Amino acid sequence: MNGRKMLLLRPQLVDAQDPTKFRPGTNTIIAVDSVGAGIGEMVLFTQGSSARLAPSMKDAPVDAVIIGIVDTVDVLGKQIFSARSQ
Amino acid sequence: MNGRKMLLLRPQLVDAQDPTKFRPGTNTIIAVDSVGAGIGEMVLFTQGSSARLAPSMKDAPVDAVIIGIVDTVDVLGKQIFSARSQ
Amino acid sequence: MNGRKMLLLRPQLVDAQDPTKFRPGTNTIIAVDSVGAGIGEMVLFTQGSSARLAPSMKDAPVDAVIIGIVDTVDVLGKQIFSARSQ
Amino acid sequence: MNGRKMLLLRPQLVDAQDPTKFRPGTNTIIAVDSVGAGIGEMVLFTQGSSARLAPSMKDAPVDAVIIGIVDTVDVLGKQIFSARSQ
Amino acid sequence: MNGRKMLLLRPQLVDAQDPTKFRPGTNTIIAVDSVGAGIGEMVLFTQGSSARLAPSMKDAPVDAVIIGIVDTVDVLGKQIFSARSQ
Repeated sequence: MNGRKMLLLRPQLVDAQDPTKFRPGTNTIIAVDSVGAGIGEMVLFTQGSSARLAPSMKDAPVDAVIIGIVDTVDVLGKQIFSARSQ
Repeated sequence: MNGRKMLLLRPQLVDAQDPTKFRPGTNTIIAVDSVGAGIGEMVLFTQGSSARLAPSMKDAPVDAVIIGIVDTVDVLGKQIFSARSQ
Repeated sequence: MNGRKMLLLRPQLVDAQDPTKFRPGTNTIIAVDSVGAGIGEMVLFTQGSSARLAPSMKDAPVDAVIIGIVDTVDVLGKQIFSARSQ
Repeated sequence: MNGRKMLLLRPQLVDAQDPTKFRPGTNTIIAVDSVGAGIGEMVLFTQGSSARLAPSMKDAPVDAVIIGIVDTVDVLGKQIFSARSQ
Repeated sequence: MNGRKMLLLRPQLVDAQDPTKFRPGTNTIIAVDSVGAGIGEMVLFTQGSSARLAPSMKDAPVDAVIIGIVDTVDVLGKQIFSARSQ
C-alpha cells in the first residue's frame, strides 16, 4: 500500500424529508484515491471486490476506492448539487 | 466509467406494521443503470461482485447495478405495488 | 433474470430479551428462489458471491438466493420453531 | 447443503462503556459449523467469500462459517473471557 | 488459522459534530494482524475478499486483516491524529 493516497470520506445521503438536499451520513470510509480528488470535493467511490477493478488496484488489499469526481447530482429532475457552485 | 448513467436509489422496505405498503429506507444507493430506468420507477438492483455480472459490466469497478424494472409486488398474496397504477 | 421467481424476505432474529422466540427484523431482502418456497414459509438464504453457487445461479447477477426451507430451529436446546406447527 | 450442521450465532461486542466485558449484539447470524462447536460456546466465524475457504466449504453456497472455538479474549491487556471459567 | 494473531478492533469515526476528533464506533471487528500492531495503536484494516490479498493471507478464511499502522490523520487540512502524540 506504499505510495497510495488515502482519503477519509463521509457518505452523503439524500435527505428523506427534503430530497432537494444531501445530509451527511454518520459513518466514515477510508478509500484509496485513484482520480486525484481534493479536500471537500464530492466523489464517487466503489466498495468490495469491485474496488480492485479501479485503475492500478489489481491485487491490492483495498476495499474502497474513489473512482470519480462528481460534477452534478439531480434528484427528481432538480439539480441538488453542482461542483461549480461549491 | 465513461458514458454510463448512474442513478440515485432509495431502497423501499415492506413496512413491518402494515405489510400492505412500502416505506422508504433512509440510505441512498448509487447504481449504474443497465436497463434504461426512468425517474420515479421502482427498480431491482444487485450489489457487490454480482453487479459485475449484469450485461456489459464485466471488469467495471461497479458495486451496484440496476438489473430490472418492477412491474408488480405481492406481499402475503396481496398486490401492494403495480407500475401501471403509479 | 427472465423466468426466475423472486421472493420478498423479512429476516427473523432471535429475540435478545426472550431467546425462545423470533422477532421480525426491519429490513426487506429480495431473493431468488431456488427451492420452490411458498408464502409464509421460514427459509434459509445466502448472500453475496456465495449466492451464485446455489443451483443454476452461476453467472447470474443475483446477490441473495433462497437455498433451503427450514424444518425446525432450536435455541439453547429448546425448539423455538417447527414448520409443522405453523 | 445436506448434512451440514448450522448454528445460530449472536455476535458479541466489546462494550464501549466498560471494555472489560462483552455485550450481546442485536442481530442473529446463521453459520455452518466446521469445527464441532457446541451450544453456548464462544466461536470465531468468517463471512462472505472468505467463508468458502474454510475446510470442505469450497463451492458451497455458504456466506458464514464457524472456523474456530475461542479460548481466551484479552482487551487492553486484561482477559475478559476464558472458555474455562464458563 | 493456526499461529495467526487476531486483534479486536473498534472502528474510529470522524465525529459529525466536531470533525477535529474521532469518536469510537459501537461495533467490534476481529482482524488478523499482518503488520505487528500493538495494543492501543491506530491501524488500517481491510475487509471482505480484499483481506485475502494482504501478505500471506491467500487462501485463508479471513474476512478482516490489519494492513497498516496509522501515523497521522488529517481532516479538512487539520491534523486530528498523530501516533507520536499518543
